[in-house]
Amino acid sequence: MDNIAAELGWSSYSQGMVDSWHGSNHARKEDYVAEEVPIVLVYNNQPHVVMLTTPLDLEDFALGFSLTEGIIRHRSELHSVRVVQRAKGIEVRMRIPEQRFSCILDKGRNMTGRTGCGLCGATTLEQAIRQPPPVGRGPVVDAEQMMSALGAMRDKQSLNQLTGSVHATAWLALDQGITMIREDIGRHNALDKLIGALTKSEADFDRGCLLITSRASYEMVQKAASVGITVMAAISAPTALAIKLARECGLTLVGYARNDNHVIYTHPHRIQHYQTIAS
Amino acid sequence: MDNIAAELGWSSYSQGMVDSWHGSNHARKEDYVAEEVPIVLVYNNQPHVVMLTTPLDLEDFALGFSLTEGIIRHRSELHSVRVVQRAKGIEVRMRIPEQRFSCILDKGRNMTGRTGCGLCGATTLEQAIRQPPPVGRGPVVDAEQMMSALGAMRDKQSLNQLTGSVHATAWLALDQGITMIREDIGRHNALDKLIGALTKSEADFDRGCLLITSRASYEMVQKAASVGITVMAAISAPTALAIKLARECGLTLVGYARNDNHVIYTHPHRIQHYQTIAS
Repeated sequence: MDNIAAELGWSSYSQGMVDSWHGSNHARKEDYVAEEVPIVLVYNNQPHVVMLTTPLDLEDFALGFSLTEGIIRHRSELHSVRVVQRAKGIEVRMRIPEQRFSCILDKGRNMTGRTGCGLCGATTLEQAIRQPPPVGRGPVVDAEQMMSALGAMRDKQSLNQLTGSVHATAWLALDQGITMIREDIGRHNALDKLIGALTKSEADFDRGCLLITSRASYEMVQKAASVGITVMAAISAPTALAIKLARECGLTLVGYARNDNHVIYTHPHRIQHYQTIAS
Repeated sequence: MDNIAAELGWSSYSQGMVDSWHGSNHARKEDYVAEEVPIVLVYNNQPHVVMLTTPLDLEDFALGFSLTEGIIRHRSELHSVRVVQRAKGIEVRMRIPEQRFSCILDKGRNMTGRTGCGLCGATTLEQAIRQPPPVGRGPVVDAEQMMSALGAMRDKQSLNQLTGSVHATAWLALDQGITMIREDIGRHNALDKLIGALTKSEADFDRGCLLITSRASYEMVQKAASVGITVMAAISAPTALAIKLARECGLTLVGYARNDNHVIYTHPHRIQHYQTIAS
C-alpha cells in the first residue's frame, strides 16, 4: 500500500459530528465519511482522464488503469509515475512509450470519470464495448475456500469499516489465502488498484480468484479478463452484459456469493464443490 | 414510463437457468439479471457520450441528462428526441438550439460513461467539479413521512425485485406521497430519468424530497441541486465531497436512512421530528 497521497496531506476519510436519529431519539455522534478526490491521469504531459477516487494506493491505480484500459501492454511500459499535489485534486503524471501515447491521441479520448465510472472515452457504440481476448485455463477453486475468503475479507476492509461506503477487491491466491486487498469509492478503481498491486508483486493471475464486494458489471469482467484473471466471485449480482462477456472470454463468474450461498453464471468447471457424502 | 426501448426489442432484464449453491446443496434455478445496454446520446447529429444504462424510460433519461449536465437550460430547449435501434445498442437522437450545441463543441467533450459514471468530459481538475447555484428555500419534511416513503419504495422497485441489482430514485411530493420512481443499473442514470420525468410532469422541486437507494456521491448532489431539489435522503452513505457540495449549495442531505435510523449531514432545518411527548 502506498501512502503518497497521505504524504501530500490527503486523507481517505473525514470525520465530523452529525445529527443521528433512531426513530424520534436524537444524538450528536462522531461520524466518518469516505473522501472522493478528483485525480487527473496525465500521460506524457497530456491530461487523459479525471476520475473521482479514494486517495490511497495511487501508484497501484496508475499501473492498473494503464494496463486494464490497454494504454500499455506490459508493466515495463510504465516508465515513471509521479503523484503531484494540485489545488483542486491530485495529478498522477506518467511516462509511457511514444508509440503507446500516439494510440491514445489517435482515439482522441478525453474525459472525466466519476466514482462509479469504468472506462471513459468512446463516442460510438462500436467503441464502447471492448472484447478481451480469451482467458487461459485457470485454476480449480474450492468453493468452501472461496466462500470463507469472502467472509474473511470483511475484517480486512479497514476504510469500509470506518465509513461503510467503499468497495473492496481482493486476491485469493489458492495456496496462500488472501494476499492483497484494495479499497476505493469506485468499484472499478478498487479493481485497477488491485491489478496494479498484483502486477508489481508478480502474482500469477492463473493461480487465484478475484473477490469483489460490489456488483459484477460489464467493466469489472472486462478489466479482470484483460489481464488474464480467470475466476471472479462477486458478493452482489452480475449484469446481463457482464455474464455475456464472461461467457465469451471464458471467465468463471460467480455472483451473490454471501451467506453461504453462491450462483455460478459461467464456466462452472473451475469451481469444485465437496458434496456431503452419506456414510 | 416510456417503453420505446421495449418496442425496439430491448428488455430491461434477461432470464436464464443457473447453478445455485447453498453450502454444498446444488440446485438448477431460474434467474433474472439486469441488462446493461450502451446508449449513445447524440446532439444535433454529433455523438456526445455513450452510457451503459437500463433500457427503460430513455426519453426521460434524455431530458434529465440534458438538464442536469447543463447542456440545455430549460425543457423547451430539447426540441426533439428520437430513440433509434442500432446493432450494438441504442441511439438517442436529440435536437437542441444551435447556441447550446456550440457550448458542447467548445468544451470538446466526447466520452463514454459506464453504469456508475456520473458526468464525463473534463480533462482538467478545474473542470471536474461543478458547483451548482444555491438551492431555494425548500420545504420542511416530516421525518416520519420521509422514512415511511423510503420503506414504501421497496415495493415499487419492480426491476430490482426481479434482479436485485438496480438502483432506484423516487420523488416524495409532500402532499401526495411517492409520485414517481425510476430504476437504472447506474445510480446517476436513475436520477436523470427521474428528473426528466418530473420535469415533464411539471413537479415542483421545491415541494418534495428526493429518495435514493444508493450512496449519495458527489454527482448525485450536483445533479439534484442543479435543478433546484433541496432535500435528498439516501439509504446508503454519503461521501465527503457530496457533503461539502450539499453544505455549500444549501441542500439538506440525509444518509443511512434505513431501519428507522437516519443521519442528517447538512442543513437540518428542513427535517422536522416529532419527539415523543411524555403525557
